[in-house]
Amino acid sequence: MEGPVSGLFNMTSSELRITLSHGGGGRASSQLIDQLFLKHFNNPLLAKRNDQAIFQPPVGRLVMSTDSHVVSPLFFPGGNIGSLAVHGTINDLVMSGAWPLYLSAAFILEEGLLYADLEKIVISMAEAACQAGTPIITGDTKVVERGKADGVFITTTGIGVVADGVNISGECATPGCAILINGTIGDHGVAIMATREHLQFASAIASDSAALHELVASMLQVAPGAIRCLRDPTRGGVAAVLNELAMQSGVGMLLNEQALPIKPDVQAVCEILGLDPLYVANEGKLIAICEADAAADLLASMRQHPLGRDAAIIGYVVDEPKTMVEMTTMMGGRRLVDWPLGEQLPRIC
Amino acid sequence: MEGPVSGLFNMTSSELRITLSHGGGGRASSQLIDQLFLKHFNNPLLAKRNDQAIFQPPVGRLVMSTDSHVVSPLFFPGGNIGSLAVHGTINDLVMSGAWPLYLSAAFILEEGLLYADLEKIVISMAEAACQAGTPIITGDTKVVERGKADGVFITTTGIGVVADGVNISGECATPGCAILINGTIGDHGVAIMATREHLQFASAIASDSAALHELVASMLQVAPGAIRCLRDPTRGGVAAVLNELAMQSGVGMLLNEQALPIKPDVQAVCEILGLDPLYVANEGKLIAICEADAAADLLASMRQHPLGRDAAIIGYVVDEPKTMVEMTTMMGGRRLVDWPLGEQLPRIC
Repeated sequence: MEGPVSGLFNMTSSELRITLSHGGGGRASSQLIDQLFLKHFNNPLLAKRNDQAIFQPPVGRLVMSTDSHVVSPLFFPGGNIGSLAVHGTINDLVMSGAWPLYLSAAFILEEGLLYADLEKIVISMAEAACQAGTPIITGDTKVVERGKADGVFITTTGIGVVADGVNISGECATPGCAILINGTIGDHGVAIMATREHLQFASAIASDSAALHELVASMLQVAPGAIRCLRDPTRGGVAAVLNELAMQSGVGMLLNEQALPIKPDVQAVCEILGLDPLYVANEGKLIAICEADAAADLLASMRQHPLGRDAAIIGYVVDEPKTMVEMTTMMGGRRLVDWPLGEQLPRIC
Repeated sequence: MEGPVSGLFNMTSSELRITLSHGGGGRASSQLIDQLFLKHFNNPLLAKRNDQAIFQPPVGRLVMSTDSHVVSPLFFPGGNIGSLAVHGTINDLVMSGAWPLYLSAAFILEEGLLYADLEKIVISMAEAACQAGTPIITGDTKVVERGKADGVFITTTGIGVVADGVNISGECATPGCAILINGTIGDHGVAIMATREHLQFASAIASDSAALHELVASMLQVAPGAIRCLRDPTRGGVAAVLNELAMQSGVGMLLNEQALPIKPDVQAVCEILGLDPLYVANEGKLIAICEADAAADLLASMRQHPLGRDAAIIGYVVDEPKTMVEMTTMMGGRRLVDWPLGEQLPRIC
């Protein structure tokens, strides 16, 4: 490679920024691919440098899921947009009962982005993908002019495999089923909001961003046929997911407020910011709806996993033709847990 | 559904715009999914409304590809960002010799986008996907604040299947192979530039955006083992793709300028705008590198397909340790066809 040419990297400069030529398909693009993506995502399929990746199909049904990530700020306690993009798509696969296999990653970069920030993000993605055993096998990079995006947007798509006999889907909840969650709610959304609002006292609250494939695999071992629905309560939080599942299954839900696991400092920040934790996004949580007689065993097995230590049964599915989600409050009353209507927390994931 | 509530659609208004709540995971998001995406992308896998889609694996190796689309303007002669996003990812799959099976689509919307524009784009995607027999089986929508994106960005990811015996990859070119293209170069990039620059006289130039799976299937029938490399010359044009393939295969390329198919009006606009057609993006073209003795048959079969009528043999692979791409000019000289260095045409796809 020649000396410094317009658009090419001088990798020693801490002031290095992304330019439009890094998305142009020419030499600067090629250098970005070699020195950043191939280096960190390092795997034989990606290293072929084709515009696609070929792999042998696994035994079982395949599952595909995609998510664009636009979180702001890009870096937050407990992660950044890169680790989030890996965890988010793995979790969407896993919520079908799948084991994740491969990821793709498509980047939209804003001209002027600091290369050092992009590299941090890419390294986090690589670490998250490696930890989950889910290589990033193909990708794309586009650059748009300054002011036409916001730093980095990352779209990850995943492929996974679902074993025979596993049939988990949003329409499978029936009255009597138990509703479980694997831990405390609202951590991710509150960590983002506290960072955005510069709440010093809340700086210890970290996102719960994590890949849930191992937790779900252990749940499937304990209660293979009894898990009816799985969904990760991200945007719109637990409230949105329960309303979606109620609508898909044509049932109601009755939550028990007392049973909801919430960290005291998350609760405190929610009170200050006027947020209801039921509507706040999570990135390492799942809602499981299972047959009632399997609930105790499932709960016990979840609590044995590091990502399920605070698991709880938070309510039951009920026969309710209007598919309403309600909650027995601490005061003994009942209140509607409606769909989120406006947008409490934009750009949370 | 109740009457007009903040964030919900009044579908009769032509002034309807996207708001942050359409990306919030609540009722407005749900309405957008129902009334736009499920309606137009209409297929049973998507209709399950899960965060992922499950399908049976085909017989053969699988191929995965992803592309973010950030083209500006969103609408141009010959297509829009929606049809482009479908064709672009199908073509990336097909360049491995694959047959495309399924697509996912992830949208990043800018607050304030006209709903009517989004609907036009979604309808084009649905038509393109239907025409190619490649349903959009899962997706995602995010909304970012006004000024943090540029209308719509669409990331499509595709899954395809490669038949046994097909082994097409960028490192397989060897000296003596012929280099073919299926038609005229530069149409897409020039159509975009002419739209951007409001060149009235060039308004008849349309993008060549098209899905190439049927053309490639017919080529594979004629010369199953003889096709070594396939790649679509999008960003950076024919020049970038030939340099990539030369680098991957460790060979040189020698083009014949006289053989390059270029429409006279595309050539004229290139001269006015100071563009070299070799560096201008295409969206319905492929470069095929094949064994020399199969080239004539392959060319004849390409010309029988509507997307290959202007196919031509444009050069040969040569033994060249520096992996240079050169061209015999009309004047009888030789010139280097180097990597594109800067960014001639940002946001072309």
